[in-house]
Amino acid sequence: MNVGIIGLGKMGLPLSLQLIDRSINVVGMDQQEEAMNALREAGGQAATSIDELLNKLETPRTIILLVPAGDITESVFQELREKLSPNDLIIDAGNAHYRDTLRRHEQLKETGILFADSGTSGGVSGARNGLCAMVGADEQAAERVKEIFEAITIEDGFLLTGGVGSGHYLKMIHNGIEYGMMQSIGEGFELLEKGPFEYDYHSVADMWNHGSVIRGWLMELTAEAFKEEPKLDSIKGVMHSSGEGKWTVEAALDYQASAPVIAMSQLMRYRSLDENPFHGKVVAALRHQFGGHAVEKNE
Amino acid sequence: MNVGIIGLGKMGLPLSLQLIDRSINVVGMDQQEEAMNALREAGGQAATSIDELLNKLETPRTIILLVPAGDITESVFQELREKLSPNDLIIDAGNAHYRDTLRRHEQLKETGILFADSGTSGGVSGARNGLCAMVGADEQAAERVKEIFEAITIEDGFLLTGGVGSGHYLKMIHNGIEYGMMQSIGEGFELLEKGPFEYDYHSVADMWNHGSVIRGWLMELTAEAFKEEPKLDSIKGVMHSSGEGKWTVEAALDYQASAPVIAMSQLMRYRSLDENPFHGKVVAALRHQFGGHAVEKNE
Repeated sequence: MNVGIIGLGKMGLPLSLQLIDRSINVVGMDQQEEAMNALREAGGQAATSIDELLNKLETPRTIILLVPAGDITESVFQELREKLSPNDLIIDAGNAHYRDTLRRHEQLKETGILFADSGTSGGVSGARNGLCAMVGADEQAAERVKEIFEAITIEDGFLLTGGVGSGHYLKMIHNGIEYGMMQSIGEGFELLEKGPFEYDYHSVADMWNHGSVIRGWLMELTAEAFKEEPKLDSIKGVMHSSGEGKWTVEAALDYQASAPVIAMSQLMRYRSLDENPFHGKVVAALRHQFGGHAVEKNE
Repeated sequence: MNVGIIGLGKMGLPLSLQLIDRSINVVGMDQQEEAMNALREAGGQAATSIDELLNKLETPRTIILLVPAGDITESVFQELREKLSPNDLIIDAGNAHYRDTLRRHEQLKETGILFADSGTSGGVSGARNGLCAMVGADEQAAERVKEIFEAITIEDGFLLTGGVGSGHYLKMIHNGIEYGMMQSIGEGFELLEKGPFEYDYHSVADMWNHGSVIRGWLMELTAEAFKEEPKLDSIKGVMHSSGEGKWTVEAALDYQASAPVIAMSQLMRYRSLDENPFHGKVVAALRHQFGGHAVEKNE
């Protein structure tokens, strides 16, 4: 059995290595020669074009996409749609928006090409050692999806979530929850930092991971961060975001779900990007106008 | 070695049983005869008054308070303050407000009575099998506190957090973080429930606990709740709160810490208590006034 993997980046390459460990051969493709060489060294095959990749795959073919969401996913998908045969299976394991996934699924109708969408969690170490994967799939593809994903996920970390689209939607919500949990943890440590006592934050997070209600992987990562640097002095308090939190808030609007904490977590990320926020200028100006309160001037 | 425990409720009794398991004798006191009998059956001693309790304790005495925060803690504390001797140690293991703890510590000055404040997490099962405890203590009491708490906490689940007050402050913040994390998890499942796909929530939460970024004890409890009841049909979406979340928000105001997610989590609990919120009436009335939008009438 072999599978094609398009995209040998920070997720695709470790995933390929893990598949090879589990005796599933990989034909990989990437624009970075370095990644291709790493795959070859691990015993995989490298292809320099989609045509070559398709030729090297056993039929019916299975191809996992691990390319960035958006234009790249779209162009690879469209090329595959033209070139694949009935019963070939595309698994989009990137972070596509579930609406794009639903549209692509629609475009595969009457082609006989099967589709699955996989949301994965667990980061790069998970990709190498065992992921958590939530996968929506065409019913006819379920068994094939299962065989591959049970090889690359940790025990009980794989779920067939339903039809196509349900995997990406679920992964999006997972990330929304993650945003809220992370912001809450961040605010808690802010309250320790500004409060009246002195704590050793590494010890606090580590203790909280042993028996407390808020123990979990995020708190383990918090402990590790403070172990490396007791007050995170080298890190700016700027929080970027990569889209899934925003999509979750958009879904809250679309489905009229009250999700203020997840929404606020996203908005606080934007707040962190502004050193000198415009709303702050407006509020300061208004306080000055009606109350004569001092404003701080830009240098 | 023996210790006194005042309050044999849902935390005090299991904690007493655990201490007895670890060969620390317990002299307990509670108004409920049932709890006193349970303690006696487990090999502990029961006292019907504070005087009797003090007589039965080896000196210097160690007394753990596990009574409700507020008036009861206050009256027990004041009685102990009058009756204890230098080097006796009071450990307040209830959820007192850290400002009350600081005030009580001040009141013990020049009495020679030692004080410690313990915030505990891990719930009732933790009290029986191993807690997570964050304990602030007078320096002279540190070793005695350590001996007791290392017996009742899980490995690495005990931290001497600093001076008196720092344990209760840290526990308060722990609960604030917990509020935000729980609200975020709740909102995520709301987005699944209102979104376009059908999921089995028990399977989702269970899968998320195996390798995902949001794995942790709260997600394990989520999985258990959905296992018992797939859509939680029997439970009203009403979220009570018991004070520590509110205190955390008050601390955010006192120390000017931006903690909108924790604050919003507390406010959403209040929102859930109102079936027919007054702000909703006001907004509906205003929409009607300026836009002629329909209002829903009370029956």
